[in-house]
Amino acid sequence: MTAPRIGVIGGGQLARMLFGAALDLDLAISFLVRPGDEGILGRAADVTVDDLSLGSLERFASHVDVLTFEHELTPIDTLKALENQGVCLRPSAETMAIAANKLAQRELFQRLKLPIPRFVRLNADTVFDLPCIAKAITGGYDGRGVRWINEASDLGPLVESDTPWLLEELLEVDKEIAVLTVSTPDGDITTYPPVRTIQRDGICVEVQWPSGAGEELEGRAQAIATAIARESGYVGVLAVELFVVAGKLYVNEIAPRVHNSGHMTIEAASTSQFENHLRAVAGLPLGPTNFTTPAVMVNLLGELGSLEGYEPPPNTRLHRYGKEGRPERKVGHITATAATVAEASQLAHRARDRICIHE
Amino acid sequence: MTAPRIGVIGGGQLARMLFGAALDLDLAISFLVRPGDEGILGRAADVTVDDLSLGSLERFASHVDVLTFEHELTPIDTLKALENQGVCLRPSAETMAIAANKLAQRELFQRLKLPIPRFVRLNADTVFDLPCIAKAITGGYDGRGVRWINEASDLGPLVESDTPWLLEELLEVDKEIAVLTVSTPDGDITTYPPVRTIQRDGICVEVQWPSGAGEELEGRAQAIATAIARESGYVGVLAVELFVVAGKLYVNEIAPRVHNSGHMTIEAASTSQFENHLRAVAGLPLGPTNFTTPAVMVNLLGELGSLEGYEPPPNTRLHRYGKEGRPERKVGHITATAATVAEASQLAHRARDRICIHE
Repeated sequence: MTAPRIGVIGGGQLARMLFGAALDLDLAISFLVRPGDEGILGRAADVTVDDLSLGSLERFASHVDVLTFEHELTPIDTLKALENQGVCLRPSAETMAIAANKLAQRELFQRLKLPIPRFVRLNADTVFDLPCIAKAITGGYDGRGVRWINEASDLGPLVESDTPWLLEELLEVDKEIAVLTVSTPDGDITTYPPVRTIQRDGICVEVQWPSGAGEELEGRAQAIATAIARESGYVGVLAVELFVVAGKLYVNEIAPRVHNSGHMTIEAASTSQFENHLRAVAGLPLGPTNFTTPAVMVNLLGELGSLEGYEPPPNTRLHRYGKEGRPERKVGHITATAATVAEASQLAHRARDRICIHE
Repeated sequence: MTAPRIGVIGGGQLARMLFGAALDLDLAISFLVRPGDEGILGRAADVTVDDLSLGSLERFASHVDVLTFEHELTPIDTLKALENQGVCLRPSAETMAIAANKLAQRELFQRLKLPIPRFVRLNADTVFDLPCIAKAITGGYDGRGVRWINEASDLGPLVESDTPWLLEELLEVDKEIAVLTVSTPDGDITTYPPVRTIQRDGICVEVQWPSGAGEELEGRAQAIATAIARESGYVGVLAVELFVVAGKLYVNEIAPRVHNSGHMTIEAASTSQFENHLRAVAGLPLGPTNFTTPAVMVNLLGELGSLEGYEPPPNTRLHRYGKEGRPERKVGHITATAATVAEASQLAHRARDRICIHE
């Protein structure tokens, strides 16, 4: 039996790292990328540059066996139309419909009776405790589509915008953790050990394992993530982000794809999230998800200095995404491994200070 | 400054792993592969399928900034002609002339007064202690071009063959070790810690770090390898293979490229041999060469079972080369990491037993 050819919608850094995993395993892989989203172009052999229209996706789907996603930008109606034509989507259109919509996510969490911050959908006459957080129901990521709301007058522009918004209570978050689940088409679900994620202005800047959240909270986080993956009929890697507030967990949100919180699984876990996502969508047995060493990942934001001046510190690995630098943009990351998180963090920051010239 | 575009002559598994490293670092890379040697075709975006003629290499060289090699098959005259035209070769044609010729290698070792097995060039009237080993002076690898000579009559066919041969004394080898050196264009040379290589019928089947050879022997091996890299004016990764015989080192041979003995640097060293080779030929600062964990690599020879039936053991990584299976052919490898070599070896063999259906 030959493993199926996998088609990935998207061409950014997640696509590149999926490509690296496909290369090691010798899995056939193709990419559909929009003009301008071409990090994989000129790297992978099989890249189609086209829009996300139904026609484009039909053409792309016709030469692969299974479609998967590195972003949530494909219109859900298009995904449903493909599925009706018999195209195999992993995750499915229905799952993507939930994951790509912050309101649908919260309805799923409520169905599962999971603890979440209080929220309402924003209307012209919404009353909600202030200050609070406003989140765009669709399209937000990396701090985009999130607003801190201090006064009622801040809501006017949101009510009038084309995007629907929800308001969420402001929690005093002690720390944030993330759990990656991997689900097979048969419904087997496994999780990676939770990691700690550190955000700045809504953007993840650092990820650490061990998370330091303690065995009990970690176990509950894994159970929550597994329940979400199961209830949503997920296939592949699903990221679940959680808040820790006074020893209690709240589900923040989910991302239906390989995720920034899992990049260090390339160097520090038995199987990388990218390999396991490919294994899952290809219907192959999953690889073990244990970490093999404490590790820290730091994102490189903004602009990178040239490699000519960069001397890598020991026990660090640099990943450059081939993206043009601009403020707050993720253009690379560094993973460091060491005997402790503190040591790994120090190495990762030393590396970042050497390569990152503007943040 | 933009790093130079690197052109690699060759398209097998070493080229694939160089490609993986280029992808992580976002280095521009192109491949020239002969028809039939196409492991990189359909993977990397920039692959030229052509022969190793001067015309073909001139065309390829015209769109890259520096040429490097994954094999020693390009005629040396062709390399010299390219260099005379101003093409940047790393390593140089002169270095490749030495490395691709087992007699020239031995003359270099003798100049450096390095301990080597006794040898003679084979002529019609050669007299040499039997049994001994015959080695083709050019073109041999992975057990090809090597013969055990028991009786003088075995020599006849070799004397009459088109290939020149040398005869070498048969040593009672206790173990074999290998050292990878990395040399910059400026003449800086660093080495990876020596690894133990285990051969069967002249083919490497397993590599281990730590080598177990002891600090003193390891230090001498690294000094020998450094002397060879320096004397040959090498640039990039050079592999030096040595015999340990009754506590004494003998240089066996060198390979002018990334090498099977260094595959596990992908998972188990600060910087992989592939990344450091690219760094060296691109004129970038080298990365640290320390191992971060004990590790064992086993080669997968022959034919692989399908991925559908393969459950990876923990702490192992599978690399498949996309090559058709045939007896004794290297079609993949597995790297295992653990607290000890014994544990890592057990894991690697367990993985091999699960995926390798015929040897």
